[in-house]
Amino acid sequence: MSDVLRGKTIAVLGGTGPQGRGLARRFAASGLDVVLGSRSAERAAETAAGIPGNVAGLSNLDAASAGDIVIVAVPWDGHAELLKELAPALAGKVVVDCVNPLGFDKQGAYALHVEEGSAAQQAADILTDATVVGAFHNVSAVVLNDPELDSVDTDVLVLGDDREATDLVQELASVIPGVRGIYGGRLRNAHQVEALTANLISVNRRYKGHAGLRVTDV
Amino acid sequence: MSDVLRGKTIAVLGGTGPQGRGLARRFAASGLDVVLGSRSAERAAETAAGIPGNVAGLSNLDAASAGDIVIVAVPWDGHAELLKELAPALAGKVVVDCVNPLGFDKQGAYALHVEEGSAAQQAADILTDATVVGAFHNVSAVVLNDPELDSVDTDVLVLGDDREATDLVQELASVIPGVRGIYGGRLRNAHQVEALTANLISVNRRYKGHAGLRVTDV
Repeated sequence: MSDVLRGKTIAVLGGTGPQGRGLARRFAASGLDVVLGSRSAERAAETAAGIPGNVAGLSNLDAASAGDIVIVAVPWDGHAELLKELAPALAGKVVVDCVNPLGFDKQGAYALHVEEGSAAQQAADILTDATVVGAFHNVSAVVLNDPELDSVDTDVLVLGDDREATDLVQELASVIPGVRGIYGGRLRNAHQVEALTANLISVNRRYKGHAGLRVTDV
Repeated sequence: MSDVLRGKTIAVLGGTGPQGRGLARRFAASGLDVVLGSRSAERAAETAAGIPGNVAGLSNLDAASAGDIVIVAVPWDGHAELLKELAPALAGKVVVDCVNPLGFDKQGAYALHVEEGSAAQQAADILTDATVVGAFHNVSAVVLNDPELDSVDTDVLVLGDDREATDLVQELASVIPGVRGIYGGRLRNAHQVEALTANLISVNRRYKGHAGLRVTDV
């Protein structure tokens, strides 16, 4: 692990959902201290107890306060409201939004229109005293949660306007064996990375797999 | 080459631009008959003469008429107008849109808002008698045009609502050595694949490469 990450606590808001739980598992496996946040501290503690490593379960607010880097893995529905509540606790921190605003119907998944452009930009608009980065949008939760899979065969596109913060989140992604954190552009280009998850869901339906993405020639 | 492609003529509209020219080169190299279309038949003929294989240069209209499968690789600016003009010639054909509606400023590339949702959906709205598929959005033109590179290290996401047409275009993508044509969802999910080219441009800037995408677990 790189020096910038050593000793840091990673908070995962929405940590009882499949994506948050999967990321928490991988970060803890790499030796990072992890706190799971959830609307219910009890449920967070239960989930935390099922993950090997140094993982605690707290309310979203307490997790936001405890984390040095805070991952937002909550459902899109309620995203803005939660971030408004937590804004004071998140001030000064690097906040990593990995929320995909998607709708579902009988034809599968599709991207929702987001007034601010993307979930990550909505987070940045609300959290004016934090540094918002987008990442971990396209990583299969099934793969993250599979204890049989030591290595995760995907890259993570990291989006943001602050170089120090994107570098840090690239390092964080890269602690997961198999994963490379790759700079993927500014926050204004986050929408398509979030929305691309709808395409990966289509790929998974067609090919019966858990698709990820690799960037070639990097 | 699969039987469905054997003997088919591939038309590339905007075939004198880097993307069109690169695709034409690769299709011709695989043994397909190719016609390049351009606003100027003379310029199309000049470009065609520089590409090994069976490649002819024509006006966009003549190329559209000659092609069994028609690739649209024209600039976004003028996309709708050209397709309206060519609609009668394209009736009954599979039309493959690979146009990326992007803007550029000093911070790099960004996705433009498209009223219809995406370039591919705009094409489908105009070409009501053709079958529109989206593909080849994220393939580096530099790589396609490099005669030293026998193999292209990327997958091609193929989007569309007609299974026969997407299957055909997946076959077409797969004639390029190294490339796999992978079903990537319905046309309503084309926007993010087009827009993702902005992210790949950011990747290329940062890492000084020609990035492509591989889908894992497929």
